[in-house]
Amino acid sequence: MATVYFNGNFIPKDEVKISPDDRGFLFADGIYEVVRWYEGFFYDMNSHVSRLGRSLKELRINWTEQGSFPLIADELIKTNNLANQPAMVYLQVTRGAARRMHSFPSPEVNPTIYANAWGFIPDNRLKEEGIKVMMKEDIRWSRCDIKSVALLANTMSFQEAHENGLKECIFVRNGLFTEGSRSNIFFVIEGTLFTHPESNHILSGVTRKNVLRIAEEAGIKIREEAVRENSVRVIQEAFITNTSAEVTPVVELGGNTVGDGLPGRITRLIQKKFDAEIIASKG
Amino acid sequence: MATVYFNGNFIPKDEVKISPDDRGFLFADGIYEVVRWYEGFFYDMNSHVSRLGRSLKELRINWTEQGSFPLIADELIKTNNLANQPAMVYLQVTRGAARRMHSFPSPEVNPTIYANAWGFIPDNRLKEEGIKVMMKEDIRWSRCDIKSVALLANTMSFQEAHENGLKECIFVRNGLFTEGSRSNIFFVIEGTLFTHPESNHILSGVTRKNVLRIAEEAGIKIREEAVRENSVRVIQEAFITNTSAEVTPVVELGGNTVGDGLPGRITRLIQKKFDAEIIASKG
Repeated sequence: MATVYFNGNFIPKDEVKISPDDRGFLFADGIYEVVRWYEGFFYDMNSHVSRLGRSLKELRINWTEQGSFPLIADELIKTNNLANQPAMVYLQVTRGAARRMHSFPSPEVNPTIYANAWGFIPDNRLKEEGIKVMMKEDIRWSRCDIKSVALLANTMSFQEAHENGLKECIFVRNGLFTEGSRSNIFFVIEGTLFTHPESNHILSGVTRKNVLRIAEEAGIKIREEAVRENSVRVIQEAFITNTSAEVTPVVELGGNTVGDGLPGRITRLIQKKFDAEIIASKG
Repeated sequence: MATVYFNGNFIPKDEVKISPDDRGFLFADGIYEVVRWYEGFFYDMNSHVSRLGRSLKELRINWTEQGSFPLIADELIKTNNLANQPAMVYLQVTRGAARRMHSFPSPEVNPTIYANAWGFIPDNRLKEEGIKVMMKEDIRWSRCDIKSVALLANTMSFQEAHENGLKECIFVRNGLFTEGSRSNIFFVIEGTLFTHPESNHILSGVTRKNVLRIAEEAGIKIREEAVRENSVRVIQEAFITNTSAEVTPVVELGGNTVGDGLPGRITRLIQKKFDAEIIASKG
């Protein structure tokens, strides 16, 4: 039985009891973070902590001990004997349990804090070979910058991709690529790296931010600018990023072969530099 | 301690244990219904059952016993001694508990079914005097026709209204009034009753549907057509509808006085006929 964190305590997972009055359950009134453990360290924990703070602030959820997230994550790795393997830590914070009404509980109630960890074996095949993804109208809300648990549109869209044998669903809003159902997306057009700018229509991904930094350090030309859906034919390379997929090439987009159908040169370069950072961090 | 329904059993509320793996908690992957008990009967239970079925179908949640909702609701009223007072029954169905991943659990897991009931004392003052409401850009997703628990945008918007001393937030999408954060909205312009047509941008409200029927029976001219935000000055009357507010006049909309600032003639007529139906149903 895995040990998880729940409202201040480390307890066996089956002892966790989420109330049916929890606003996470009733209203999707909560946020989350996922951090990756690389056999010895969390990748860019600082950025996750900082985004966690922003999400809580945007929803005005008052978790006074939000600074303890890294300690909770460390303890979950240790107590579940995951220190020497790749693992993930998930944290969710909701506005807490209160009689059901749309307005926020007044007086405030304690937020619900839940975190768990699990080990996994990285499947590097997708990173090597690339993935095929679908395209779909972005049906999500207009605050995708908040990492909220209101993910129904994401799960529905991902499921649609999954059933079609595809690995991600990339959203298009007003003719522009925004991001995937669980990733950001980058494109290479005429040698320049494009990705949607930070806005209310995308999540500010931690890997996205680091990839932009890595690309800049590598002297790659960058434009944080949305790519038009009808540019598919001029896209030379594409890749998605997130905490678990890291940098994963896209070789087919909405039925169209990307470039020559193989992971591109700039994608490979960024993958190599990203992986090198991980190895360097291991020391 | 209230008795609630949870996965096939009627149990004390504090014995309910929602799993932290519940997709309702993790992904807002679930739907709900609210029905109103009028000291002896549920108002238009058939329409709620039919909408429940549609919501489940749209999300492909397979609750084989969805037809038992009226029986569950009856039992909750009886067992909580609510038969002789106004009460509400809330039902929530999620895709169930499974290891967290965006795609639907495969093989399928049992959905989570939770329902509870509570009595209340109707506050008829708002129905008499009317309410003031705010207007705001519709930040919700594009499947508002599904009565899902992905309600974060609704709660944030309602809270904003609440903090400004207003009773509802009416959404505007592409310059058109859609609906409220927890209600549908109707307008009277030049003697004609307007409301947004059924679409992916509004919930098909049970009270909305019954009000349209009542208005038709009363010989009122009806147009199921969205009203432009910039028509505020020509709106003679406005009212919201939902299961708890029934027909509640709107006397101020986004800072603009509606008509002469008092509930209008057609609003009053519809209220009267709605109330008469309730009384007639009591027999």
